[in-house]
Amino acid sequence: MLGIEEIAYYIPEKRVSNYNRKEKFGINDEFIRNRIGVEEIAVKSDLENTSDMCINAYKKLKDKIAVNDNDIDVVIVVTQNPDFNIPQTSAILHGKLGFKEDCVAFDVSLGCSGFVYGLSVITAFMQVYKFKKGLLFTADPYSKIVDPADKNTSLLFGDAATVSLISENPVFSAQDFVFGTNGSCYKDLLCENNTLYMNGRGIANFAIKVVPKDILVLLARNGLTIVDIDKYLIHQGSRFIVDSLSKKLGLDESKVIYDISSYGNTVSSSIPILIEKIMKDKSVKLALGSGFGVGLSWANVLLKRIR
Amino acid sequence: MLGIEEIAYYIPEKRVSNYNRKEKFGINDEFIRNRIGVEEIAVKSDLENTSDMCINAYKKLKDKIAVNDNDIDVVIVVTQNPDFNIPQTSAILHGKLGFKEDCVAFDVSLGCSGFVYGLSVITAFMQVYKFKKGLLFTADPYSKIVDPADKNTSLLFGDAATVSLISENPVFSAQDFVFGTNGSCYKDLLCENNTLYMNGRGIANFAIKVVPKDILVLLARNGLTIVDIDKYLIHQGSRFIVDSLSKKLGLDESKVIYDISSYGNTVSSSIPILIEKIMKDKSVKLALGSGFGVGLSWANVLLKRIR
Repeated sequence: MLGIEEIAYYIPEKRVSNYNRKEKFGINDEFIRNRIGVEEIAVKSDLENTSDMCINAYKKLKDKIAVNDNDIDVVIVVTQNPDFNIPQTSAILHGKLGFKEDCVAFDVSLGCSGFVYGLSVITAFMQVYKFKKGLLFTADPYSKIVDPADKNTSLLFGDAATVSLISENPVFSAQDFVFGTNGSCYKDLLCENNTLYMNGRGIANFAIKVVPKDILVLLARNGLTIVDIDKYLIHQGSRFIVDSLSKKLGLDESKVIYDISSYGNTVSSSIPILIEKIMKDKSVKLALGSGFGVGLSWANVLLKRIR
Repeated sequence: MLGIEEIAYYIPEKRVSNYNRKEKFGINDEFIRNRIGVEEIAVKSDLENTSDMCINAYKKLKDKIAVNDNDIDVVIVVTQNPDFNIPQTSAILHGKLGFKEDCVAFDVSLGCSGFVYGLSVITAFMQVYKFKKGLLFTADPYSKIVDPADKNTSLLFGDAATVSLISENPVFSAQDFVFGTNGSCYKDLLCENNTLYMNGRGIANFAIKVVPKDILVLLARNGLTIVDIDKYLIHQGSRFIVDSLSKKLGLDESKVIYDISSYGNTVSSSIPILIEKIMKDKSVKLALGSGFGVGLSWANVLLKRIR
């Protein structure tokens, strides 16, 4: 059975504090702590590109677990801020890391739902074509496209990259997925002329409407209810969205992780960062990951601890 | 068994003739006909975006076969020239075509190898998650990024989009794939500052080196030899590259399709356009598709006629 054997993440050291931007944006401590829930955002250096961030995450993976570069069969990078539009960032990584010639490498373009989709894609691909070891990267440095004058986005998004080692010796295995798309609202998160535009309210309303419904579908068809899940790994869009979804689903507060106050909404990296934090906590037998955003697109996954 | 039930393609009507550019680029008829093998390139209108080209391909699909929009479970768009970097073009398509809410939609970023990888991804995804109908789009309008003064690229690339209907009632089913990546040469095809750069010689050398080797691997492990394949669908990079690969493999000329003299190298659309041309030719029992390019990335697929 394939699944996540290990996860590592890289969050750049540099921070920009939202407290220093209170006057500029007319916001207060209450807004920073309880509404957006982001006190400071992580920002990559100008010299760092998306592939560099992925390499840093991969170095951290190798600090945690023995990985032979030559064993890597599949590399998928989930990003909408690649190094270049051509070629795919996965190929650049393949070159820089010196992976073997019969290694598969492609990028998947998705935003905040990207990790869950990426996990579904790499697992299916490896299962069907009988590959043993894969790397699923997420890296979407929004600092490349956020307008520092835009209150809606510049206080919220942080830079990060993650890598998940997918193998036949998993800690967590994906038991089931539900997927969704509403392309009619695609303009709610859009990057034009290299600048991000976000309709935060539109996305929050959509997420609160569709995500809980699909989580209940996922649980029901696996014979589970809300209380059977040990941890909810909800995409860390903002404090408001995580709280709203938790409330709507009636989740026990202790089961919902909220983690991003010191680095921000890292798009497709937010869920794997949370999974990393529960990898060693054996009290977590069942976890539920829920990603939603750009597209609009969403996906939920049921993760079962194997060991 | 999943596979390709139908294919349709859209090539914009507008053409730019290479004969009118002989003086500008210091080329002659021999070069146009026998070296690059592209007499004119297809160019989309400025008003047309990538998603519009996909929609035109989808309309043509619906002219050929009854498709119920509500039955579409999965939409994958292979592109490196999306409408926007955010959101994925598949979501825009999903919205414009009014597909259902539980439809999966994501983009895959790959170039000339993109159709073969895309076919492998959508097939594995649908097989594992039990989806019945999927659409695999390819659309990579290089006219967006080609510098009209660049002889290496502006004589070669044409715009097109294709859509393959993937279902359990296939005409052709993918029997086996081989995949490859050489990221160390990623700079051989690169788009920076919205302008394409290509090291044509580098890519041709790489393709002639790695592609025949992998084709032989694919044939051997399926108990086949060169003569058992009825048609070779080699990525239509140029006349030179198709001829060179055919010669290196010792292919019978009648088994190699060359088709692009009136529209150009359409990147990930070149192979599905060729498949469309053999869909109804029942003498083609076995075909081999071979994509290679951006990354550098390559993939070969063995296609078997089911009906």
